[in-house]
Amino acid sequence: MQSSETKSDRRERLPEPPYFAVIFTSVRRADAESEAGEVSAGQAEAAPGYDTMAQRMLELARQQPGFLGVESARGADGLGITVSYWESEEAIRRWRDDAEHQVAQALGREQWYAWFTLHVAKVERAWEFPVR
Amino acid sequence: MQSSETKSDRRERLPEPPYFAVIFTSVRRADAESEAGEVSAGQAEAAPGYDTMAQRMLELARQQPGFLGVESARGADGLGITVSYWESEEAIRRWRDDAEHQVAQALGREQWYAWFTLHVAKVERAWEFPVR
Repeated sequence: MQSSETKSDRRERLPEPPYFAVIFTSVRRADAESEAGEVSAGQAEAAPGYDTMAQRMLELARQQPGFLGVESARGADGLGITVSYWESEEAIRRWRDDAEHQVAQALGREQWYAWFTLHVAKVERAWEFPVR
Repeated sequence: MQSSETKSDRRERLPEPPYFAVIFTSVRRADAESEAGEVSAGQAEAAPGYDTMAQRMLELARQQPGFLGVESARGADGLGITVSYWESEEAIRRWRDDAEHQVAQALGREQWYAWFTLHVAKVERAWEFPVR
């Protein structure tokens, strides 16, 4: 469907907890050049290959049994947050193993990120507005 | 300090799990006008009072015992994700009670958001790059 679904296909379904969330927060390298070879002021551009890698990671997630959805936002300051939701920790592990294999074949993470954190968390309660 | 700290003061400290995360994902109302009275194409502008409310929510969080940090990003498509981290569920409850009281005194959420979800989750594992 539209690009809005790409950003958050989570809006289509909110299962009953418990389930799991993977919170990936990152700051892109300020000195990483875009494929166009320029760095804009105030926003870090992705290194070559970044978009391909990010897209591939998402594709891998969607293919995994137990994948529930994903939300992603990156602000003008270069800080990005991606939250993916999963039925089980086993589903997360399968995705991680696949993803690590893929990323290992691409360039290192150091090329893309100045900093990142990864949190695996068990969702205990959830609300939605408007209520369906 | 600087605005980068406002966006993510989380980078300064990453405690050992378990602790808690509140994941707030929202889409701003496309028809909400900014205080300047214009709506830019491709990005939903906040309704009047939104920035004040959001700032106040953050101030309240920082004042709570057990607050560990916050990360926030909103993309050009209007989808925003804010993750706050907490030592305990009790700390989250205190913040929620304070925040609800404050927001009740402001305009309704319906004015700002077309949609949002709120997840409370227990962080079980966490990684950081580069490793400190």
